Amino acid sequence: MDEQIVRIPVDMLKEFICEVFMRCGIPNDDANICTEVLITSDLHGIESHGIGRLKMYYERLKNKLQNPITNINIIKESQTTSVIDGNHGMGMVIGFKSMNIAIQKARQFGIGAVAVRNSTHFGIDGFYALMAAKEGMIGMSFTNARPCVAPTFGTQPTLGTNPIAFSAPTDEECPFLYDAATSITQRGKIEVLDRAEKTTPEGWVISKDAKTMTNPNDILSKIPNQEAALLPLGGEGEILGGHKGYGLSTIVEILSSALQSGAFLFQLSGYDDKGKATHFRVGHFFMAINIVNFAPLDVFRKNIGDILRSLRASLKSPGKSRIYTAGEKEFEMRKFIHENGVPVNRKLENDIKYLQEELNLKNYNFWA
Amino acid sequence: MDEQIVRIPVDMLKEFICEVFMRCGIPNDDANICTEVLITSDLHGIESHGIGRLKMYYERLKNKLQNPITNINIIKESQTTSVIDGNHGMGMVIGFKSMNIAIQKARQFGIGAVAVRNSTHFGIDGFYALMAAKEGMIGMSFTNARPCVAPTFGTQPTLGTNPIAFSAPTDEECPFLYDAATSITQRGKIEVLDRAEKTTPEGWVISKDAKTMTNPNDILSKIPNQEAALLPLGGEGEILGGHKGYGLSTIVEILSSALQSGAFLFQLSGYDDKGKATHFRVGHFFMAINIVNFAPLDVFRKNIGDILRSLRASLKSPGKSRIYTAGEKEFEMRKFIHENGVPVNRKLENDIKYLQEELNLKNYNFWA
Repeated sequence: MDEQIVRIPVDMLKEFICEVFMRCGIPNDDANICTEVLITSDLHGIESHGIGRLKMYYERLKNKLQNPITNINIIKESQTTSVIDGNHGMGMVIGFKSMNIAIQKARQFGIGAVAVRNSTHFGIDGFYALMAAKEGMIGMSFTNARPCVAPTFGTQPTLGTNPIAFSAPTDEECPFLYDAATSITQRGKIEVLDRAEKTTPEGWVISKDAKTMTNPNDILSKIPNQEAALLPLGGEGEILGGHKGYGLSTIVEILSSALQSGAFLFQLSGYDDKGKATHFRVGHFFMAINIVNFAPLDVFRKNIGDILRSLRASLKSPGKSRIYTAGEKEFEMRKFIHENGVPVNRKLENDIKYLQEELNLKNYNFWA
Repeated sequence: MDEQIVRIPVDMLKEFICEVFMRCGIPNDDANICTEVLITSDLHGIESHGIGRLKMYYERLKNKLQNPITNINIIKESQTTSVIDGNHGMGMVIGFKSMNIAIQKARQFGIGAVAVRNSTHFGIDGFYALMAAKEGMIGMSFTNARPCVAPTFGTQPTLGTNPIAFSAPTDEECPFLYDAATSITQRGKIEVLDRAEKTTPEGWVISKDAKTMTNPNDILSKIPNQEAALLPLGGEGEILGGHKGYGLSTIVEILSSALQSGAFLFQLSGYDDKGKATHFRVGHFFMAINIVNFAPLDVFRKNIGDILRSLRASLKSPGKSRIYTAGEKEFEMRKFIHENGVPVNRKLENDIKYLQEELNLKNYNFWA
């Protein structure tokens, strides 16, 4: 955060993001969905997946690595399930439509699940889980991603950061929201430390010879060459449970790929055999569980609220004044960002100026 | 393993376990289910949840803390969902019947999920996930448990070890099977180290003042007094992702309790307000996903097999000759135990002899 120089009001930024997407040929409704996903990331304080990725989307669209028009095909369907081909459209639109299908099925039959292939970067995983929570359901969302995590006893980036998202409504203003990589950390956090010229904590990343790496710049340059790898949750080896994080990551890979015969592991590098950039071909898995099939919604809301309040009331560690439950930090950040605007560091400022230049969008007065 | 003195053939041990359960008043069919769950734990090499717990079941039954006759009530039902009250019967029978209901629903509608309240110790979580895999489905099983894990920034044992189990069939002999606590470790492993007079690794357990504890005997005596707590996967604080293990544990607690208004967190201590031992009131959540609703079973089997083989073929760490995928170790252990028998250490030998004495089952010639 040291390098932060300016904050842009949320509404102004949303308008800009949406206009960039539309200038890329994305239809109005779809551009609104993409914007909503990106800004939600910034509102949650997850800077790696929000406006910070707009330039990446722009360039992938410009280079025809993904399609601005999102045509999804339903490959297979039953009362509770769908298999969808995203045809390399916009990942956020594919994710939004797929989770809506899961929600519709859950409303009718109690549970709905949708497996997706040939998708692209879909932003934060938590967005889709939250969609279900807003409908009074439990939502789950999983995705695979380009290889950067080593399996236990290995050093090669093989698995993606493969996040798990889980959301449920509560009797409080703040929903329960878990949204986390199955690795200890993810590339975005290392990029933040790199820009701030800080080191990464020991135990996050290993080299090809299984030594801890702590230089962010070194790490970022070596992951693509398979000379550095992130570690799964639980760390290296089995002593602190690294095999558990690795196993959870494998589960996410299975759900995101095996059910729809999609690409997996090394196939998600984003490059073909000749080293040419290609479609991303990422896979997702969405699930919605209709709470009213189990209990009246207000009863469930109170039950989960009681669990969360009981956790927060648990005895604190010395020097700690508060125990959080999942979703609270994002909820508080959302309020803060709405009041103060989205933080823009030097690199992001350059990205935005580049897009303004490229697309002739200089009417946005961000830098006054 | 240092202390191991004898191995008992699997079939002989199964017969004994089943007879103990029947002498406790458990009907024949139910005793067979309970035996199958316990012996599966020993076959998987999870000594903490197998025959090692038989004495505990015997004593809880003798003290009327759970019922030998398992009457389950279906409280609420829809095409894909059930809420079940286990009425403090045998957890393994409750789990077995509940997962079978989920499997039946999945066969008919694609997905089935069952939430259970008022259950008791149900053995290893993985048994129920495996039931679905044997039927060509993805199986998931979750349970809460007595408080022993501290939330991030806390020191009080608040959450259970809250395991996640996930299983799926593959094109290999060995199914994919993930079965792990959301904490770094569990009490059983600390008991094993205690008997072997070894220390626990740093980072597994903290004291009330958030200091690492490494004396197993000290740890085991202090957890019930809330003066020691296991740490969630990812360890203390947030630097290595402890909040992720804590969040996953919270998800398991929500699924295992909030959907059926069951007991949670401190309510699962096994003691009432006056310190008297009481019903355990644990909750479970089971899910089955019918793979054929997504893809032909043989296609899925090959897809998942390809993922697992690709993981195993990933580059090894220096000095490591093999990368495992979840379920392989259990599968190999199963073969080994079938050939060599179940290991019985001194404490377990004493437990078995005690049960032989109590129930007049001296005809079993374990110690020849």
